[in-house]
Amino acid sequence: MTAGPQGTRAMQVEGIPASPGYAEGPLFDLDQPPASYKPKASTEEERAALVNAIGTAVGRLTALVETADGDAAGILEFHIAMLEDDALSGPALAAIGSGQPADAAWRAALDSEIAGYEASDQDYFRARAADLRDIRDQVLRALSEEGEAEAPPGAILYGEDIAPTRFLETDWNKGGGIALKRGSTASHVAMLARSRGVPMVVGLSAPAGPLSSDALLDAERGAIVFSPSPAEVEAFRQSAASFADRQGAARTFLTEPAVTKTGTAVRVQVNIAYPSDVDGIDVATCDGVGLMRTEFLFGKALPDEETQYRAYRKVLEWAGDKPVTIRTVDAGGDKPVPGFTVEETNPFLGLRGIRLSLKRRDIFGVQIRALLRAAIHGNLKVMFPMIATHDEYAQAAALFAEEQSALAAEGVAHKLPPLGIMVEVPSVALAPEDFADVAFLSIGSNDLTQYVMAAARDNAAVAHLNSVRHPAVLRLIASVAAFGQKKGVPVSLCGDAGGDPTTIPALLEAGLRDLSVAPAQLAMAKAAIADVSV
Amino acid sequence: MTAGPQGTRAMQVEGIPASPGYAEGPLFDLDQPPASYKPKASTEEERAALVNAIGTAVGRLTALVETADGDAAGILEFHIAMLEDDALSGPALAAIGSGQPADAAWRAALDSEIAGYEASDQDYFRARAADLRDIRDQVLRALSEEGEAEAPPGAILYGEDIAPTRFLETDWNKGGGIALKRGSTASHVAMLARSRGVPMVVGLSAPAGPLSSDALLDAERGAIVFSPSPAEVEAFRQSAASFADRQGAARTFLTEPAVTKTGTAVRVQVNIAYPSDVDGIDVATCDGVGLMRTEFLFGKALPDEETQYRAYRKVLEWAGDKPVTIRTVDAGGDKPVPGFTVEETNPFLGLRGIRLSLKRRDIFGVQIRALLRAAIHGNLKVMFPMIATHDEYAQAAALFAEEQSALAAEGVAHKLPPLGIMVEVPSVALAPEDFADVAFLSIGSNDLTQYVMAAARDNAAVAHLNSVRHPAVLRLIASVAAFGQKKGVPVSLCGDAGGDPTTIPALLEAGLRDLSVAPAQLAMAKAAIADVSV
Repeated sequence: MTAGPQGTRAMQVEGIPASPGYAEGPLFDLDQPPASYKPKASTEEERAALVNAIGTAVGRLTALVETADGDAAGILEFHIAMLEDDALSGPALAAIGSGQPADAAWRAALDSEIAGYEASDQDYFRARAADLRDIRDQVLRALSEEGEAEAPPGAILYGEDIAPTRFLETDWNKGGGIALKRGSTASHVAMLARSRGVPMVVGLSAPAGPLSSDALLDAERGAIVFSPSPAEVEAFRQSAASFADRQGAARTFLTEPAVTKTGTAVRVQVNIAYPSDVDGIDVATCDGVGLMRTEFLFGKALPDEETQYRAYRKVLEWAGDKPVTIRTVDAGGDKPVPGFTVEETNPFLGLRGIRLSLKRRDIFGVQIRALLRAAIHGNLKVMFPMIATHDEYAQAAALFAEEQSALAAEGVAHKLPPLGIMVEVPSVALAPEDFADVAFLSIGSNDLTQYVMAAARDNAAVAHLNSVRHPAVLRLIASVAAFGQKKGVPVSLCGDAGGDPTTIPALLEAGLRDLSVAPAQLAMAKAAIADVSV
Repeated sequence: MTAGPQGTRAMQVEGIPASPGYAEGPLFDLDQPPASYKPKASTEEERAALVNAIGTAVGRLTALVETADGDAAGILEFHIAMLEDDALSGPALAAIGSGQPADAAWRAALDSEIAGYEASDQDYFRARAADLRDIRDQVLRALSEEGEAEAPPGAILYGEDIAPTRFLETDWNKGGGIALKRGSTASHVAMLARSRGVPMVVGLSAPAGPLSSDALLDAERGAIVFSPSPAEVEAFRQSAASFADRQGAARTFLTEPAVTKTGTAVRVQVNIAYPSDVDGIDVATCDGVGLMRTEFLFGKALPDEETQYRAYRKVLEWAGDKPVTIRTVDAGGDKPVPGFTVEETNPFLGLRGIRLSLKRRDIFGVQIRALLRAAIHGNLKVMFPMIATHDEYAQAAALFAEEQSALAAEGVAHKLPPLGIMVEVPSVALAPEDFADVAFLSIGSNDLTQYVMAAARDNAAVAHLNSVRHPAVLRLIASVAAFGQKKGVPVSLCGDAGGDPTTIPALLEAGLRDLSVAPAQLAMAKAAIADVSV
């Protein structure tokens, strides 16, 4: 601790960076109690108050959707659908009928739903609890006829967790950041913060200093300083300026092909999670899509062939001649799908990815047919997630051949795309020689790291162990790159590491020349590549 | 399918071997409905019937305890303690008071408890549900005044799952085996079956043939054949005879030191889970204890220093000059401890082993002091589970040094044992060079395999991937053995693989010369070693 202004003591608390950047400003308390409600004179008035408040909340969300882009719109539409569902309002209206005021009735109905989600052992459903809390509080605010307390411009929003709508309604043009005691780097808000460039740190364990004071949020290393000393402010501003310089410089790299300092060309593709993600990307700024996830299709119900075909075709047509690598569904793990995945004690080590697809061939067959049909519309490549043994690849490839014959017999236009595999199970990286017959290898650094370190990537308690830059992980990556070079099998990497400027030098030194990164990381990744001498 | 007797069709169903061996005989249906209860004339009589039935069940279990050994006695005593606990009988007696018959009241009370355990996402608690079902059915049988239907001698017990008491009451001297549709190789019964040499297969997916027919249980490969053809019976009997020959020959190896065909000496130590395990082992038949687990101490409450000290000292004194390698507590994963471990979505990739011990230094300190004090009573070595980085080892070693100073200052007799690590997180096997300063390395093949293959070792759906003989796993083991030889750091292996005759050749070829096996596997392991030319 060092001396701060007014005799307070500076205190630094470490956390986990969820979106890089720097923010300096007043703290804003996210955990303020909601405004109080004035009970109405009759049951009828209580009922009307709740119906109106839900309408107000829906109206507010609908207005937000209009200015939101792909990911954000998806989240908000999910909220609207829940608000319009009688399953939530029904019990609350019934409770009003038996004499409760509207606010208590709504809170009880929602809290009961929330408790059900929170009790789940699946991250996916627990994350939905945060959405329900957001919905609950929006209607409560509408009932009290008070707006949400607004954070001052440039404030650091500090608290247990943050509602997605709070993020979307904040004006980030004035700076500011997010500092959470809980939270997760995998949350909806973390995803949004990274794509908007809002600094964010999660998992801050210790209690805050006085909330009235200014604070320094360093979301590049992952720390917050309460009541900083002038020397700390000075050092912080230098780091922030350096970060801004690096970002500014990066933008000039965006439109150019990526090359290292010594002139080595590096392919940089993008990872996308939704077909609409490409709407915001200039195809000229990237070398194609290195990873298109397909879990979005499996969100609520199992998708039909036509829905899938249209989604794949949209991205292929956007990419033109450039390759689009679509990964067959990686359900299971942290991505449960009702009617498809199974409950497991250790889902990351369970029936997920290709294991599940091979077990549910009815569902896999639909995806394969959609991919074969879409392939005629561009430069499609297909890869299988969670391959552990060559036999799994052989089975999946055989299913492609089967469906191809069936489509040919039916006279349906189609094409067999090159078939590759994800390298994320350590067994494949340790014994790649079995896989000289695949069309390409794509290293999934997130999963590979969690298995090599035996540290789940969504568990803050072991986040200190989950490092792609551990020599063991880099050694495996280098050996896969060397294998690919020797056997003429293209090798790329599509985990978060590929877009991390501090990791890119190590990846290029390991022999990789093909990275796939989040769209928001394209510029910084290219800038980081230009700084490496390989 | 092949033609069976009486025109029925032979059907072979694959499963997972849980205890090796062969059984041929009639099928006995484990899933028969329980006998019916005759309601009594008054509430008082119903109450008395339940109290008597519980007493009968306790008496039966107490009689069983007297003939049972370590593991089995522990399980039975747990059942008795639950039966004598008012928390189970209280609600049932209350329900009788409000007019229910004794059997319905008891069943409802137990089913409600069972549902709670079954809803847990922890294997440990779900396994306790099987114990409660056993207790429920024993009291129901006592109420109906009917004994359990007895299996004919030499029968193959077939059904969903099997109660521990059923296993303990069956006379296995006449042969027979166990074939389960569900079950787990990690269950109490599987553990008992291995130590008694009872053939057992779990995870049989398909439905049975006619239960009236004879069947062939091959628990060496993991399969059952219903309605076999004469040719199948013939081939089966040859395999069974070969297995019996190998077992018989193995017994002659038990008392000799293990050497390969070409005269290379191999150390064979034993793995134990309870101090009482050594009561049944002649210390002359093994080279010491390669793994003494300490989770047993953390079963119900957190153990005090004296309890731990006495447990360690008992085993050290039994071993004399031979080494005893005690592993510091590996809680977490599939071994939750109330008040110590945390609930996690992927416990195998979470806060377990040394990670948890370093976080809960209050609890770890007690174990360290007990180990330092026990060290003066024999040839103690201590190892840390789940080491992923050298920093974790350094922190743990520093805690030993601290506690040693404290004991020295207090004048308490103690000794600092050699400190080694488990090699089970792939990062250590991939980058062993960091660990040239540890006293020894012990490969934990069960965990190492599950991380390399990304396949949980307790999940039947991915059991086909969980193979220590996959080239990736063997390659890692060989590289650790080579590192140890080069740097002069002793390397041993203490997973289930060390005692598996079909895996031993590969382990010795990988360079290992020090295996630690389950006591029941000692003879077969030595016999298998004698058959290898390295």
